[in-house]
Amino acid sequence: MKIIQSAKSINALSVKWRMAGKVISLVPTMGCLHEGHLSLMRKARAVSDKVIVSLFVNPMQFSQGEDFDSYPDQFEKDCELIKNEGVDALFRPTSEEMYNNTFQTGISVESLSKGMCGKDRPGHFDGVATVVAKLFNITCPDSAVFGDKDFQQLVIIRQLVKDLNYNIEIIGAPIVREEDGLAMSSRNLYLDPDGRKCAICLYQAIQASQKIIRTMDKVPAAKIIELTKEIVARAGAELEYAVVVNVSTLMSDEIVNKNSVLALAVKVGQSVRLIDNSKLMV
Amino acid sequence: MKIIQSAKSINALSVKWRMAGKVISLVPTMGCLHEGHLSLMRKARAVSDKVIVSLFVNPMQFSQGEDFDSYPDQFEKDCELIKNEGVDALFRPTSEEMYNNTFQTGISVESLSKGMCGKDRPGHFDGVATVVAKLFNITCPDSAVFGDKDFQQLVIIRQLVKDLNYNIEIIGAPIVREEDGLAMSSRNLYLDPDGRKCAICLYQAIQASQKIIRTMDKVPAAKIIELTKEIVARAGAELEYAVVVNVSTLMSDEIVNKNSVLALAVKVGQSVRLIDNSKLMV
Repeated sequence: MKIIQSAKSINALSVKWRMAGKVISLVPTMGCLHEGHLSLMRKARAVSDKVIVSLFVNPMQFSQGEDFDSYPDQFEKDCELIKNEGVDALFRPTSEEMYNNTFQTGISVESLSKGMCGKDRPGHFDGVATVVAKLFNITCPDSAVFGDKDFQQLVIIRQLVKDLNYNIEIIGAPIVREEDGLAMSSRNLYLDPDGRKCAICLYQAIQASQKIIRTMDKVPAAKIIELTKEIVARAGAELEYAVVVNVSTLMSDEIVNKNSVLALAVKVGQSVRLIDNSKLMV
Repeated sequence: MKIIQSAKSINALSVKWRMAGKVISLVPTMGCLHEGHLSLMRKARAVSDKVIVSLFVNPMQFSQGEDFDSYPDQFEKDCELIKNEGVDALFRPTSEEMYNNTFQTGISVESLSKGMCGKDRPGHFDGVATVVAKLFNITCPDSAVFGDKDFQQLVIIRQLVKDLNYNIEIIGAPIVREEDGLAMSSRNLYLDPDGRKCAICLYQAIQASQKIIRTMDKVPAAKIIELTKEIVARAGAELEYAVVVNVSTLMSDEIVNKNSVLALAVKVGQSVRLIDNSKLMV
């Protein structure tokens, strides 16, 4: 597997592959990989001849006071994991390579970035949209694979691709969960034992909501949100938001339907922010 | 010459050309073509196997109250002119093709868009940056040719390409002038005979400034700006701005040097806004 730091070099490699008729898939990551990331790589492998993984902790998507400086780093382990998935190239730029000292361009997917995580993390999705566009331009992939776990991000990236006319297929991959249902996340490493127990309230809320929907018709979203609030409060977590929204527009649903997603963000313990989501009719 | 309305179709054509090893150059225009535009096409022709011209009056770069609705249109004449330049494909999308009803993504090249025309036309350069990125993604060119006349635009597009890692060479082409020195512009059509006479004050200011610089060392920018103000006022035009700035950073120069550009915008008559610029040491 090639490990490449320079944007020019990975671009040249990708262009060479394309000219040879190879189909390329990109898996953008911030490292600290878990089974969720590996499932994205397998998905990419299944649809392409060449898989590029990027590993870049993007400063532009962190706000002041967030965990950019402490974001977990396990490069050697990540390398092993990526190699074992048969990935063809790892793009691992420095911050300077991605943002030189005259950098000043931002991309904003406006309406979709406003609510949910966008409200709690101002500027976050502009940082995501900008770095993803850069990665697309650098690696010229035919497809890119993102996790369903970052639900709002995935919706925003699909919109970015449509609005800016990228000829790239965006593939979502299902959430991978721990045995007790906690969605895998690099930030789970921040949880202490109490926090780890508390964190399953996200999945409990999803399961309880799905159960109601299986037994009732025309369930009001308000009922699901109420239930979620109770479960999160009982667990001792702090709810940042709980919404029932359309899977592609992020508009609130009043009545749960087959395109409704329950999306949640909570704070566990002092400051570990966790998100989760699920379609409600499954 | 192929005339193509659909972004998908021109993209497919461009991808086909690339796979066949052809070098592609793009010339974005808003139509109402003059010799300036034709010089861009010739420049594109000289560096590529396939030339694509786009013709799209981009609503996103016009503010409320500007001339979007009245922007001159001469499609049949434009087609003839483009054909005569041996252009391979004309991309002429509708507004709906470029901006469907869920469109919501904007690109901003922040610092460079603030001053000069950016001050007089808020949002203009975000509209330019966004549509240019779309055109790049749609046509996948190796190079794109823009006129030096839209000086700030050219600097912004170079920055966009650098910041977003487009592998596209940006080629600037010299201003083409009428016999009396007026820079060619589609908006010159708006000038009545008095306005047409008045409009040459832009070029007179450039010439007078260059003359000073040929005869003096270390000319203060303030002196050039003062002189320009006098010439514009004497002609009866309204100065929007006159600046002496670095050719790539747009930062003000105090003393004129070999990278200094004099850039001007004036209003002639009721509402015809004209711009011009030139390097000062030539």
